[in-house]
Amino acid sequence: MKNQYVNRMQEGDRINDYFVAARKDLRSKQDGGKFLGMVLKDKTGDIGGVMWNNATDTAKLFEVGDVVSVRGTVGTYQGRLQVRIDQVLPLCENDYSLSDLVNKPDNLKETAEAFEALLLSLGNPFCKALCAAFLQDQDFKESFMQAMAGKKWHHEYVGGLLQHCHEMARIAETVCELYPELDRDVLMTAIFLHDAGKVHEMTHGLAAEYTTEGKLLGHLQIGCDMVQRKMDQIPDFPEKLRMELLHCILSHHGELINGSPVTPRTIEAIVLHHIDNLDAQTAAFSRIIRETREKGQEWSDYLPLIDRVIWTK
Amino acid sequence: MKNQYVNRMQEGDRINDYFVAARKDLRSKQDGGKFLGMVLKDKTGDIGGVMWNNATDTAKLFEVGDVVSVRGTVGTYQGRLQVRIDQVLPLCENDYSLSDLVNKPDNLKETAEAFEALLLSLGNPFCKALCAAFLQDQDFKESFMQAMAGKKWHHEYVGGLLQHCHEMARIAETVCELYPELDRDVLMTAIFLHDAGKVHEMTHGLAAEYTTEGKLLGHLQIGCDMVQRKMDQIPDFPEKLRMELLHCILSHHGELINGSPVTPRTIEAIVLHHIDNLDAQTAAFSRIIRETREKGQEWSDYLPLIDRVIWTK
Amino acid sequence: MKNQYVNRMQEGDRINDYFVAARKDLRSKQDGGKFLGMVLKDKTGDIGGVMWNNATDTAKLFEVGDVVSVRGTVGTYQGRLQVRIDQVLPLCENDYSLSDLVNKPDNLKETAEAFEALLLSLGNPFCKALCAAFLQDQDFKESFMQAMAGKKWHHEYVGGLLQHCHEMARIAETVCELYPELDRDVLMTAIFLHDAGKVHEMTHGLAAEYTTEGKLLGHLQIGCDMVQRKMDQIPDFPEKLRMELLHCILSHHGELINGSPVTPRTIEAIVLHHIDNLDAQTAAFSRIIRETREKGQEWSDYLPLIDRVIWTK
Amino acid sequence: MKNQYVNRMQEGDRINDYFVAARKDLRSKQDGGKFLGMVLKDKTGDIGGVMWNNATDTAKLFEVGDVVSVRGTVGTYQGRLQVRIDQVLPLCENDYSLSDLVNKPDNLKETAEAFEALLLSLGNPFCKALCAAFLQDQDFKESFMQAMAGKKWHHEYVGGLLQHCHEMARIAETVCELYPELDRDVLMTAIFLHDAGKVHEMTHGLAAEYTTEGKLLGHLQIGCDMVQRKMDQIPDFPEKLRMELLHCILSHHGELINGSPVTPRTIEAIVLHHIDNLDAQTAAFSRIIRETREKGQEWSDYLPLIDRVIWTK
Amino acid sequence: MKNQYVNRMQEGDRINDYFVAARKDLRSKQDGGKFLGMVLKDKTGDIGGVMWNNATDTAKLFEVGDVVSVRGTVGTYQGRLQVRIDQVLPLCENDYSLSDLVNKPDNLKETAEAFEALLLSLGNPFCKALCAAFLQDQDFKESFMQAMAGKKWHHEYVGGLLQHCHEMARIAETVCELYPELDRDVLMTAIFLHDAGKVHEMTHGLAAEYTTEGKLLGHLQIGCDMVQRKMDQIPDFPEKLRMELLHCILSHHGELINGSPVTPRTIEAIVLHHIDNLDAQTAAFSRIIRETREKGQEWSDYLPLIDRVIWTK
Amino acid sequence: MKNQYVNRMQEGDRINDYFVAARKDLRSKQDGGKFLGMVLKDKTGDIGGVMWNNATDTAKLFEVGDVVSVRGTVGTYQGRLQVRIDQVLPLCENDYSLSDLVNKPDNLKETAEAFEALLLSLGNPFCKALCAAFLQDQDFKESFMQAMAGKKWHHEYVGGLLQHCHEMARIAETVCELYPELDRDVLMTAIFLHDAGKVHEMTHGLAAEYTTEGKLLGHLQIGCDMVQRKMDQIPDFPEKLRMELLHCILSHHGELINGSPVTPRTIEAIVLHHIDNLDAQTAAFSRIIRETREKGQEWSDYLPLIDRVIWTK
Repeated sequence: MKNQYVNRMQEGDRINDYFVAARKDLRSKQDGGKFLGMVLKDKTGDIGGVMWNNATDTAKLFEVGDVVSVRGTVGTYQGRLQVRIDQVLPLCENDYSLSDLVNKPDNLKETAEAFEALLLSLGNPFCKALCAAFLQDQDFKESFMQAMAGKKWHHEYVGGLLQHCHEMARIAETVCELYPELDRDVLMTAIFLHDAGKVHEMTHGLAAEYTTEGKLLGHLQIGCDMVQRKMDQIPDFPEKLRMELLHCILSHHGELINGSPVTPRTIEAIVLHHIDNLDAQTAAFSRIIRETREKGQEWSDYLPLIDRVIWTK
Repeated sequence: MKNQYVNRMQEGDRINDYFVAARKDLRSKQDGGKFLGMVLKDKTGDIGGVMWNNATDTAKLFEVGDVVSVRGTVGTYQGRLQVRIDQVLPLCENDYSLSDLVNKPDNLKETAEAFEALLLSLGNPFCKALCAAFLQDQDFKESFMQAMAGKKWHHEYVGGLLQHCHEMARIAETVCELYPELDRDVLMTAIFLHDAGKVHEMTHGLAAEYTTEGKLLGHLQIGCDMVQRKMDQIPDFPEKLRMELLHCILSHHGELINGSPVTPRTIEAIVLHHIDNLDAQTAAFSRIIRETREKGQEWSDYLPLIDRVIWTK
Repeated sequence: MKNQYVNRMQEGDRINDYFVAARKDLRSKQDGGKFLGMVLKDKTGDIGGVMWNNATDTAKLFEVGDVVSVRGTVGTYQGRLQVRIDQVLPLCENDYSLSDLVNKPDNLKETAEAFEALLLSLGNPFCKALCAAFLQDQDFKESFMQAMAGKKWHHEYVGGLLQHCHEMARIAETVCELYPELDRDVLMTAIFLHDAGKVHEMTHGLAAEYTTEGKLLGHLQIGCDMVQRKMDQIPDFPEKLRMELLHCILSHHGELINGSPVTPRTIEAIVLHHIDNLDAQTAAFSRIIRETREKGQEWSDYLPLIDRVIWTK
Repeated sequence: MKNQYVNRMQEGDRINDYFVAARKDLRSKQDGGKFLGMVLKDKTGDIGGVMWNNATDTAKLFEVGDVVSVRGTVGTYQGRLQVRIDQVLPLCENDYSLSDLVNKPDNLKETAEAFEALLLSLGNPFCKALCAAFLQDQDFKESFMQAMAGKKWHHEYVGGLLQHCHEMARIAETVCELYPELDRDVLMTAIFLHDAGKVHEMTHGLAAEYTTEGKLLGHLQIGCDMVQRKMDQIPDFPEKLRMELLHCILSHHGELINGSPVTPRTIEAIVLHHIDNLDAQTAAFSRIIRETREKGQEWSDYLPLIDRVIWTK
Repeated sequence: MKNQYVNRMQEGDRINDYFVAARKDLRSKQDGGKFLGMVLKDKTGDIGGVMWNNATDTAKLFEVGDVVSVRGTVGTYQGRLQVRIDQVLPLCENDYSLSDLVNKPDNLKETAEAFEALLLSLGNPFCKALCAAFLQDQDFKESFMQAMAGKKWHHEYVGGLLQHCHEMARIAETVCELYPELDRDVLMTAIFLHDAGKVHEMTHGLAAEYTTEGKLLGHLQIGCDMVQRKMDQIPDFPEKLRMELLHCILSHHGELINGSPVTPRTIEAIVLHHIDNLDAQTAAFSRIIRETREKGQEWSDYLPLIDRVIWTK
Repeated sequence: MKNQYVNRMQEGDRINDYFVAARKDLRSKQDGGKFLGMVLKDKTGDIGGVMWNNATDTAKLFEVGDVVSVRGTVGTYQGRLQVRIDQVLPLCENDYSLSDLVNKPDNLKETAEAFEALLLSLGNPFCKALCAAFLQDQDFKESFMQAMAGKKWHHEYVGGLLQHCHEMARIAETVCELYPELDRDVLMTAIFLHDAGKVHEMTHGLAAEYTTEGKLLGHLQIGCDMVQRKMDQIPDFPEKLRMELLHCILSHHGELINGSPVTPRTIEAIVLHHIDNLDAQTAAFSRIIRETREKGQEWSDYLPLIDRVIWTK
């Protein structure tokens, strides 16, 4: 069991605990030798680390994403905390508890079952077939179950993407009751697939990072390509439904400036966009409120992303 | 019963039917006499009118907001359709059908009862008392029941504001189930009162126009003043709740650029803003889809407000 | 041969000449009958038309995009010129001269040959294979040869897209000489394919209009899908090259606000974007200068798109 | 008398002097104990401080806003100067000189008298009565006399708000002479009250901080409420004047993006906005010029708020 | 004396009065002949005119900027009023009253004398010499006295620029009393010369239009060149003063987006910018209030430039 | 020969090598004495330095821009590396190699000759005379040859401005072949002179800094003044060409927000702007790719100026 967490570290602390190795760089010293730069991560945050001796050999012992046992001391470098590392040892899966390293909601399995049941009960046979094609694709399904919706702002944990989609579907049920013009099958399918591209845009294991494909193409384009390939395999997939679903994926960021190449032009697309936003912001405020209360503050720290402080009462 | 509607008029039509007199201006002719400028309105739109003879006497026969019988001919002036008016006669309430002149949903009474019941069942005694104070204020209640949420974009009909609030409450129920951090009583009270100022920002009878107070102060400030006065009359109204509710009203437009002097800084405020947006845009898309289909088009006309066309399929 | 052109029409003119029927709408008159709304087009512009009698029968005689002989009179409606149509008759290909109806550069064939030769001489075998796959696809090639780069601003004529790409390639040659870091094969392939999606985003015959697919997905996404499908058919197409080319297509508008979902992150992508812009704006200024001089003006009319007037000296 | 000022501190200095305790946080150490975080302030700036031992007892000795004697050493923490505190002792009013801790103009009393005389000589009886009501409200008057107009940019000292208002009135006199359309009484009253809400938006003693009410409602809304309550107590206060004055307060930031929920729509409101801006920016430039010259520089440091450097010659 | 003014014209009016010929275009008719397009102007506005017969001969009778007697009838063309002209005759200076054609304040001579006295009393000998150099330049002085500050928004009449500068100087006196850091001589000189380039940016006779130089270079650059040339002729003109004054001219629009290539970086420059703005907006609001009251309206028409309506009470 | 470069320094390094003294400030210590603040620079970057003892005497030994030998130790201050200086000694030109201190392309002389030949071969005699006037001005020519186009982003080295202009001319040749409307002589002259003002906007020796004139007037205005003075000396210089060239200089930043007081309104101006942008961004991407590969990274560090990372493959 882990005792030392990143968000509690202070200058001068002696460290002897395990972390995810989220980055590993061998760089040159002025004297010609090498030193090892690392990023250490657990469920509370991350911290840089540097190892001056024995760097080349140590670097061979582990890969990025591995869990390692680290010994060292917390100092500061250029104004930020940093671990001066003495030793790094790789661990096996039995040596650590995953729940110390990443957050994961308890009810993930129930959520997955409920969401899957909803999708497989859709009335439109092509929507249902498309959802089924993804759910039967074991590689996709496994990745989707592990994916986070984002690195930091909302649903930023293992299973976060699934939970986000399920919450969106819950809200969508109510909106469909209010507005008969909405095609519920299209909307639910679009909710399921709107962020499907995130599965390849980021790595989602112990060390979440944007992939090269993610940085060059983005999850909208990646997602459209994934959905298009599945639709190609369903005989007689209607052209109208094809355009509707791809349009929902492409436009779900709502505005060009937010990265959607087209703005929402169907009622399902506009509803998808607003539900996505509503659920994301509510989740982010919830997280900030919890974190702020834990620190014993009434007002959150300043949040640059939204340029304000939040009141937690 | 009315036969001639504004949205069907074409150059050359002879007009003989009734309309709301939405504007009445006596202006000078070059020869020193007067002519009468009017705006005629029914539930399908409005059109300008001009009467060259007998203007002064005719202008005495009616007030803005009255229903009048008009005879004349449709022409064009400076590129827009305009009725050359021959005669204007005032009508009594029995002479016309209100439903020809303004839109009004059928189930308004049921909606009102359901929404009122919800508000009076709130657990927080101060929230409940505040809602009750407004519901027992007959002037307010009557105005609120007639109010539209906007002049053109969404819920732009008699009872529109009530219906909008009720839909928001429905969506809020679901969001409250998902996020235990939310204070349901605060959120429901804020939904009820977020646009309360619109009751005085606009006239809401047959001719909806912004009032001078509305143009100078806006419905956020007017609403805060109304709510503050009611809170002043409730003994021991908690300061914290006072600030929370006023903050929700002030920040519900979400961003400074949209006219909120402060941005949402509580979770109830951010949820209020996003539910408001979600319901308003969905309602607007619904309306545009219905209107576009009625015109037999697959794509809507260009919508300058949102800079796009909408697909109605 | 055609004598009457749209840009010379004045109120009161009698019309008896041929045009492209760019739009055809049967709508209801107030008396229950139908009238026919049209848009008439030739190489100098377009004008609305309306036919009050015999509308239903006349509408059966032709389709949108056909060339028709029209008789009527020029009037105004709501402040704009409009043809009151008396008669519409369909024409055969022999009855009209295509060059009266659309603009087309003289040297299109030579341009096509030169550009094709350049592409087929690329050194990178996968770039060459990809270009060849498109050039051997007769449907694509024919459409590409006819396509305009835009409806109004630049290269807005038959063959405009081809000419634009060829000019870009000419400029790219010089830039490649200056910057050895540039991969010429990638850049030339990206120039060829950057607007490939426009082939399906618009119709490109006699009546250019955005398609439903174009309005919902946009030419970036359509183009990526076209290129992806061709790459799927080339064995061992390198993943790196796949990402580079798709990235160039997606990012060539340069900024999110201009509709690219990602910004240019490779040197070929940034060069593609700037060459595209340079050639497009130069072509637009050239066109405006020619048109302004033809009108005998020293300064152009006000150009809302770029918020300025242009000096033609 | 004080010898050590915040803006002269350097790493390694031994500190033994008095400061305002502008912040006081008891936080947990990793070993379970507590440490004390502080912010120390004098008229030249502020600096963080931390006390590792005896924290809980020390924290009981003083409140935020008290003046304390501090002993310690200047070090750096995460790249910024910080005092490692050994001892904190509370002081009595006799033990320190207020003028070492906050800036305060010499002629504050004269300014107050002149401004009060101007307000009480207004011709419009309702304007005069409203000003009198505020001036006779001792709580308000005392707060108003102490208030600063802002925390950092302009008039950022005790009495700054009063001085700012008086300067605005001086400029307004001249503008009223130039433009007879201006209602001088309305303008002068609006100048007095435009920032009245700042009295509650911030604490204005030795430690200026935004209050919770300030962060949730802002000084525009707080000020409108204060003014409305006073107007309610003046019999027959004219509705027109009520709307004019509240409009001036609400719109005085000039644009929505600057936090005004309505833009200036009367001539007094537009003049108020521009005079406010003119005086604020001139005062800020004056301050920067003085501070820069004191540092012996010809050009100021980079000013992020206005994205430029200033020349002091 | 003139009886028919542009702002009172209505469809059908017979016209027989004099106007400024503000534009004169000979254009081709479809039949090969020519017609004459004109713009007619008086102090109340302008209107287009068209003459179908005898166009070539008539066009020889007058130049743009001449005063002409016009006979014709008011009709509409493409939705706007237009005079169908039957006859145009040139007039001599004795045949018309200038005050019917352009607005001009009564006290222009007094204003000029007061402003000149102020400039010639400046203490700094180089400021005084520079002002004198401009005032002794008869061409400049005459143009400056006639110039308007703008075409439409503020001080849009003969002598408007002078009046605007004098008002700014009045306000500047007060600001200089408040802020001893301000160099009054520099500020007054900068006020005099800040818009000097407008003398060449526009024609300022009876027909105000932007010149080609004005459209290509703008009044900031033209003004700097004029001032630089005068400074070159004053021996030993100090480099510091040269830079200060040119900086004031270049930066007086305040922000890049408003057309200043540099932002204000001295206190005189920031004060110049804000006084300019204050006086311009107050003048514009004054004008709109007067015009709106004349039309008998309480609220102005919608003002696109500032996106609002104005209350005139 | 130099061994220690700024971009390789690490905390703890002993420094004994030569650098450009890019800044020199004598400031007061708390004890009343003086210390010396410096910035040390070589071709790889710059670093702050501080000398606590013997500061006043040392400061007399050298000027900003001199090359000095420095002994000291690398530490950190407020989170950034800083040299604690023990000794500073001035060097003579023979003591150091210029190529260690600033970057300079090898082929600068050839580039200069080629560019000069191009300019002197222009057909338009006034363009040629203007270019010749600058090339025969030895002060200008020497400065121009040394100038960098910018401090950091592109062509940020000795001779960078010349190289940038020559590259632009190469691209312009191709564009002129494509567009016959372009006046090649005007375009080439404009390319030569568009950034001429940079010669005085910055110092261009060993320590590049913005001058006071540069910060107050900017290189557009400075350049226009330089070009105007040269044109004044060429008899009969055509007014049309004068306006065209000054317009090109003033508008070459393309948009007001980028600091051009007018937007491009001639075809040469729009082409100049786009070629400038194309060459600048391509050069910047080239530099970033080289620097990133040198660090052994596939993706560049985050680039705040363009808000992205760049892929170097």
